[in-house]
Amino acid sequence: MSKCATTVLGIDPGIGTTGWAVVGEAGGKFSLIASGCIRPRRTGPVGERLHEIFNGVASLCGEFSPGEAALEESFYGKNVKSALVIGQARAAVLLAAVETGVPIFEYPARLVKQAVTGQGQAAKGQVGFMVRNLLGLREPLVPEDASDAAALALCHLMRRTTAAALR
Amino acid sequence: MSKCATTVLGIDPGIGTTGWAVVGEAGGKFSLIASGCIRPRRTGPVGERLHEIFNGVASLCGEFSPGEAALEESFYGKNVKSALVIGQARAAVLLAAVETGVPIFEYPARLVKQAVTGQGQAAKGQVGFMVRNLLGLREPLVPEDASDAAALALCHLMRRTTAAALR
Repeated sequence: MSKCATTVLGIDPGIGTTGWAVVGEAGGKFSLIASGCIRPRRTGPVGERLHEIFNGVASLCGEFSPGEAALEESFYGKNVKSALVIGQARAAVLLAAVETGVPIFEYPARLVKQAVTGQGQAAKGQVGFMVRNLLGLREPLVPEDASDAAALALCHLMRRTTAAALR
Repeated sequence: MSKCATTVLGIDPGIGTTGWAVVGEAGGKFSLIASGCIRPRRTGPVGERLHEIFNGVASLCGEFSPGEAALEESFYGKNVKSALVIGQARAAVLLAAVETGVPIFEYPARLVKQAVTGQGQAAKGQVGFMVRNLLGLREPLVPEDASDAAALALCHLMRRTTAAALR
């Protein structure tokens, strides 16, 4: 499969569940190419579990040859323990993208919500509703991790288009 | 170089400086095989900087064929931002070890201090002093990140020996 700059892999990383979605854009229309979740085994050494995320993302980059990837920017909320865990999962995703040569971009959650709903403080349900609409799906995209990943991919595609139009 | 279970790679991960030390043990004596630091470029995408740590650790595993590696266990101190950053650097180290097939073990700082100085609350300087003594070095091991990495490797070697002796 040839690389196509308008195919974007969105990823919502987590050590329990890493949601992903491959979204394409052609003539201003978005379409869902594939989506799913990487779910590492729940027990065992953290290195092995991170390696499952790393391998999973590297496989997706190989299979779908996305032109670019989008990731949610680090959030500093919650507590230090969860920040450390999310940091590790994020690194596995970043390293897999770098290893496979896919440029990866980060967006804060607020910007993703703004892009797909027009409101940076939008509720979770509203984001899911707009992801479904923008991708022309009959049903909401499940699980939520995959839908959030699709929102990231859509955000990246929209911002790329806007940036190009403004030039 | 053949794999030797008594050659241990100690790693003290950080996005700015990742200290490392390869320590060998033969007949109850410890020796420093090599030590140094991985210093990713200070600017640029975090994925690229993490990739420098990942590649650096993978290269060390290839060059020195350590039987095992030792890493400081996650600490939850400081703030959420530093926890996220340290989590990312730790993941790069863990993934490089898994990729190269080197079993990696984690030790809390308290246990490392206990192992090399006999005191879990030992001061930094005392740890450096004992690392120098245990490795029979004329001068303190510098920089401190490399010395801390050597302390981790020594802790792992001592606990392995004790564990074996108790069997």
